[in-house]
Amino acid sequence: MIFIGEKINGLQPGVRKFIADKDKEAVQNMARRQADAGTSYIDLNVGTAWLKPAEIMVWLVQTVQEVVSTPIALDSRRLDVIEAGLKVCQNPAMINSTTGDKEKLAKFMELAVKYKASIVGLTMDEQGIPSHAVGRQAIAKRIMDAADEYGIPRDRLFIDPVLLPVKFSQTEGPIVLEAIRVIAEERNPPHIVVGLSNCSQGAKQRKLINQTFLTMAMACGLDTVIADILDPSLLEAVAAAEVILERHPYSDHFLKEVEKKRKLKAGSCE
Amino acid sequence: MIFIGEKINGLQPGVRKFIADKDKEAVQNMARRQADAGTSYIDLNVGTAWLKPAEIMVWLVQTVQEVVSTPIALDSRRLDVIEAGLKVCQNPAMINSTTGDKEKLAKFMELAVKYKASIVGLTMDEQGIPSHAVGRQAIAKRIMDAADEYGIPRDRLFIDPVLLPVKFSQTEGPIVLEAIRVIAEERNPPHIVVGLSNCSQGAKQRKLINQTFLTMAMACGLDTVIADILDPSLLEAVAAAEVILERHPYSDHFLKEVEKKRKLKAGSCE
Repeated sequence: MIFIGEKINGLQPGVRKFIADKDKEAVQNMARRQADAGTSYIDLNVGTAWLKPAEIMVWLVQTVQEVVSTPIALDSRRLDVIEAGLKVCQNPAMINSTTGDKEKLAKFMELAVKYKASIVGLTMDEQGIPSHAVGRQAIAKRIMDAADEYGIPRDRLFIDPVLLPVKFSQTEGPIVLEAIRVIAEERNPPHIVVGLSNCSQGAKQRKLINQTFLTMAMACGLDTVIADILDPSLLEAVAAAEVILERHPYSDHFLKEVEKKRKLKAGSCE
Repeated sequence: MIFIGEKINGLQPGVRKFIADKDKEAVQNMARRQADAGTSYIDLNVGTAWLKPAEIMVWLVQTVQEVVSTPIALDSRRLDVIEAGLKVCQNPAMINSTTGDKEKLAKFMELAVKYKASIVGLTMDEQGIPSHAVGRQAIAKRIMDAADEYGIPRDRLFIDPVLLPVKFSQTEGPIVLEAIRVIAEERNPPHIVVGLSNCSQGAKQRKLINQTFLTMAMACGLDTVIADILDPSLLEAVAAAEVILERHPYSDHFLKEVEKKRKLKAGSCE
């Protein structure tokens, strides 16, 4: 499983305060803890309503890079914010994210080429988020075609079928699971990723819902997740799912071994 | 989710002793607790190496029926043991199980017709358990055809794709998940069931493995399970999965509501 650690997210009031205060220690502490847990990427989201969000992204990237060498996922819908981050990333980064909107897609793909970045493509476009799996699959294909056109190999492409909260959109679970399955069945499939915490937004029993959705999605072909890598019960569920899916052999110590493998993998420069 | 409570199993040394001692209270206690938890069926397995297993099955059925009205799943490979149990069951029972072996299949289907029973069919035959999902699907189809021939409706047919321990057979997880998926995609699909505890036999972290496998299998189409209905963490995972799969609407009290629904359903005579 490829983890993208979600902790440094300016949409969270606590994190927003760290950013406003330029509290390097607090941000670096979050980066270190996620790196120690074996995350493959550290997601950086500056949040909204800043005067100069691109400058904040640069500060975040530089602050994080002072303490860890983990690749960074630049999380923004704005091209200028992403590019500002890309310019200062020391390792190949991840662009999180483009949509299937053709104009946007072209510009973000150009950036991915220029900076040798990986890129996340959301299965939505100028007409919104399709309410059926086939519609999301069609946008996924459009994004895959664009990646091909720009020469971005499949292992740098991450399709996100857009997970909405089960509390507010109760047809969401089956649609996203089906979308994951059909995209995973494509010839030469891309990575498939979801923003896990979305599914339990506003809900009670958030950890239980997140963990259950994640293992169900893994059964359908999900191989990457934006999630709280500091939640031990989530990591245990992922370790068990990896054994069941044969991605890791069973041993009596599989919990520890899957964890170790994740850390080794995160350590190698992806 | 249809639960078949696994507790009364003479293969377990403790339960075997209750049976040997004709300890009615102990057996009735296990039956009551599973019925209270909302199981749809109570599985009865006499275990092996008895001189007169059919007599023991009759004793078990009668002992359980003294305290609960939950339908019974008669768990044996032997036709005479199953039929002895069927003769004394007050409610339509479940035959657990036949295989796809043609001769055996015919005899067990005749029993199911005669006693209006539901029937579990394992996807194995005289040649063993196919090592691929397609092979298991082919046997499932043979069992479905036999059920059609005998006029047994699909809601009384439960296909079991045979779950082996992940510890000893590490290709098992993906094969069974794929088998569940393809059988669920059949036109007019049967119920699909697994003996959940098998997957963690001999393993550490049994509850974690069981719970993870179950939610993954539900994502692929599983709707019935032979399991420990007294394990609260298993029930919580199932409740979350049912919300994600839209089988139950989300509410802030979904854990309690799914539980309540299961109990109501178990109370109605299936």
